[in-house]
Amino acid sequence: MNLEEKVIALKEHQKKLKAYNHASSLLFYDASTSMPPGAAQSMSDTMGVISGEIYSLTVNPTFQTLLHDLYAQREMLDFQTRREVEELHLEQEKMKEVPKEEVIAMEEAQNLANYNWETAKKTNDFSVFAPHLEKLIAMKKRYATYINPGGDVYDTLLNEFERGMTKAQMDPFFDALRKNLVPLIKVVGEAAQPDTSFLAGPFDIAAQKALSDYVMDVMGIDKNRCILRETEHPFTIEFSKDDVRITTKYLEDDLTSNLFSVVHESGHGMYELSVDDALRFSVLGAGATTAIHESQSRLWENYIGRSLPFCKLIFPKVKELFPMQMEGVTAEDFYRAVNVAKPSLIRTDADELTYALHVMVRYELEKRIFAEELSVSDLPAEWNRLYKEYLGIDVPDDARGVLQDAHWAGGAFGYFPSYALGTAYSAQIYEAMRTAVDVDACCEKGDFAPVRQWLTEKIYRHGMLYTAEELIEMTCGAAFDPACYVTYLERKFSTLYAR
Amino acid sequence: MNLEEKVIALKEHQKKLKAYNHASSLLFYDASTSMPPGAAQSMSDTMGVISGEIYSLTVNPTFQTLLHDLYAQREMLDFQTRREVEELHLEQEKMKEVPKEEVIAMEEAQNLANYNWETAKKTNDFSVFAPHLEKLIAMKKRYATYINPGGDVYDTLLNEFERGMTKAQMDPFFDALRKNLVPLIKVVGEAAQPDTSFLAGPFDIAAQKALSDYVMDVMGIDKNRCILRETEHPFTIEFSKDDVRITTKYLEDDLTSNLFSVVHESGHGMYELSVDDALRFSVLGAGATTAIHESQSRLWENYIGRSLPFCKLIFPKVKELFPMQMEGVTAEDFYRAVNVAKPSLIRTDADELTYALHVMVRYELEKRIFAEELSVSDLPAEWNRLYKEYLGIDVPDDARGVLQDAHWAGGAFGYFPSYALGTAYSAQIYEAMRTAVDVDACCEKGDFAPVRQWLTEKIYRHGMLYTAEELIEMTCGAAFDPACYVTYLERKFSTLYAR
Repeated sequence: MNLEEKVIALKEHQKKLKAYNHASSLLFYDASTSMPPGAAQSMSDTMGVISGEIYSLTVNPTFQTLLHDLYAQREMLDFQTRREVEELHLEQEKMKEVPKEEVIAMEEAQNLANYNWETAKKTNDFSVFAPHLEKLIAMKKRYATYINPGGDVYDTLLNEFERGMTKAQMDPFFDALRKNLVPLIKVVGEAAQPDTSFLAGPFDIAAQKALSDYVMDVMGIDKNRCILRETEHPFTIEFSKDDVRITTKYLEDDLTSNLFSVVHESGHGMYELSVDDALRFSVLGAGATTAIHESQSRLWENYIGRSLPFCKLIFPKVKELFPMQMEGVTAEDFYRAVNVAKPSLIRTDADELTYALHVMVRYELEKRIFAEELSVSDLPAEWNRLYKEYLGIDVPDDARGVLQDAHWAGGAFGYFPSYALGTAYSAQIYEAMRTAVDVDACCEKGDFAPVRQWLTEKIYRHGMLYTAEELIEMTCGAAFDPACYVTYLERKFSTLYAR
Repeated sequence: MNLEEKVIALKEHQKKLKAYNHASSLLFYDASTSMPPGAAQSMSDTMGVISGEIYSLTVNPTFQTLLHDLYAQREMLDFQTRREVEELHLEQEKMKEVPKEEVIAMEEAQNLANYNWETAKKTNDFSVFAPHLEKLIAMKKRYATYINPGGDVYDTLLNEFERGMTKAQMDPFFDALRKNLVPLIKVVGEAAQPDTSFLAGPFDIAAQKALSDYVMDVMGIDKNRCILRETEHPFTIEFSKDDVRITTKYLEDDLTSNLFSVVHESGHGMYELSVDDALRFSVLGAGATTAIHESQSRLWENYIGRSLPFCKLIFPKVKELFPMQMEGVTAEDFYRAVNVAKPSLIRTDADELTYALHVMVRYELEKRIFAEELSVSDLPAEWNRLYKEYLGIDVPDDARGVLQDAHWAGGAFGYFPSYALGTAYSAQIYEAMRTAVDVDACCEKGDFAPVRQWLTEKIYRHGMLYTAEELIEMTCGAAFDPACYVTYLERKFSTLYAR
């Protein structure tokens, strides 16, 4: 094969990989949205087989040779193809060290752990989940040792979600947050709290669904290629750039949970829908990193969605759908209520200000677990101790404590930090956007085309062509700086709580 | 490899195949139940790749050698394994003659044809669908020539759904139906028609959903492993014996459409859910043939579901859910109304008596198309002529004529006859069942455990271990005889229309 033929083979490989990932993601989506409960085992069987096939696709002698050759000649390739080769090479180098049985066993263990986590959470019984968590941690340690022998285990896991990320970089980031946010939260906690009584509901689910529809239209997400469904935990999943699924959860006694879930997931969705057409079948056709992805959802959710101009834009619709609940309430009241800052138990319900501290708890626990300084059996007590220390609150039970998140059950250790990092990225990206786009005017007109265009131009279209570092540099004209995030929060919440 | 190792490899192969089929079926299900409209092309891309992979799994040198060896030694294998080898060998012998590109192209063409058929039906414009239909017919002709060179094309296609079936066997079957049913339909048509005004609705969709739920419970289908969703056309699909999906369609002005769809699809579903555990990962773990499958849905829908005792059982619930519509209506009135026999335009809405004639029209058209006696452009006119001739009715437009069914758009030529054959099978199976099970007593008690047990024992559990011929012989103690069907219809409808 000459170079041209090799490139054709590479593109064919990626097309096949895309189809397998579509099937695999659909299995996951189906398990979350539709599957009858008795089908858990058979779903797990199939997922195990398909994962094994994806592994074989990446790690097989023919493709290894092809990729090895292309990698050696990468300087001769166009930019996109070179980046594809680099990405696949990195993945292959990593995966070829992990035995296939281990990949399949990990997939199956995660499915079983997830199932038992659900039971444990429902019955508030950590002991149901503990042995599965122990097994997953042991597996992840082995996995880290396979892909990065001699390296630090937790750094290796962080790197799975945010390439190049290390504890050495995350520690100062969290230190900055701790230093600045903890006192701010204390001040806010002592100030007078806004009235939130009108957010207590009940809110008719059908009317909430109409609000979801409306908000997606306002944001301008392409419903022809993106649909909304309901799951226990909201998420976004991409099958192709023309098929993105977002999910939400409706609560009768909470209007903002669904409202901001839809804005958040639409932010993720819009990113996937707007990746360049040239990346349609490419391994690069997805969000750059976990934290960059989160920066796009948080940008819409917090920086735009929880702003006063956005609240003014959507409030007439809220009032139309819930006239009784919103009687006598103004858009400003609504804005203050959806921005209430108050330490709470559940990360996904946390406000913009306290959110990062929830993540910090998880980061510190993960670090210590993988440094073998903490055992699974001590996890609930340590969780509760840190919530008291950082957020000042008592955790009443494990269901609302250590069992609240699905991530560990899915084997996603090292994922949480990217939530905080992503939110911090968005502060900086939002600042850059405001120098080019009049976001307040967009809110006034109810037309976010300029916002979408700017984000597409700067972030969306590039997919994984650039690293997080490069994207931030290209978009903001500077390296990542957590100070933007801290400044933004200080300004917003000092103003909100000044009156 | 010794024989034992070969058998292990065979079982592993089937487990893998099962997972691929799960993924592939889920893609289809998702396209029908969830997918956003703009995702059609990307779904088609993925389906094409996955079909190609399934093809490669069946037709690759390693597996060909394994199967060749096992086939040569098949007399030494246990019954199930021998049947698996025979089944896979037959499939492989067939598939290895079809080029892989052809398989992928066929899959993709079917997806596009399906998409255009939907548009054509919506806009009542046959010309939108015609070029796709022509392409599919040409592809199917090529396909038939690949798998059965020199054989009759339509016989080859019939054989895809009902093994061993030929025009030579179907012609006398349809002749018998034509000879006996056409005069009966005439007599019935001239008799006084029962009152059906109370079936005109409107029927609240939420209440209809409650009725679906109730009926599934009455039949005793395991909802832990089977769920109901909505699609344009009701169907049943199996991902594993613990994961069966059935679908229905709700119409505000038609109570019986959903009611009997649910009974029908539950009949299909129960069959898949009750295949023996030993066949869980086996290629034999599915319904025996298309017609045998249809016999199980029709048995529940018509022979049990549309009987007077069943109507008496469920009518109190119908009355409870629709008190206004059913005011003054008795269970007997309901029974008569759901059994009204009247030539109509749409096959899926057809009554028990006229149904087979709808199938006959399609059978005759398919026969002539593949004998090259009829062109696609002449199809609409011929369709309309035959509806006039057999059913005495005028077809007002193609949307309600030649475009009504999805089958041809999916490349399923030779499928329709098995609908009529299956219904005829069920007459004979039902007769045998009644000698062993007091079905009327089951209806009175609302407990169908004896029916389910008998069907599991005789049909369900065997999966594809036996041919249709063997199953009928084993269950009924005699070969298939269309006379049972004709006698049943004559008796039922003479009585119904005698008053």
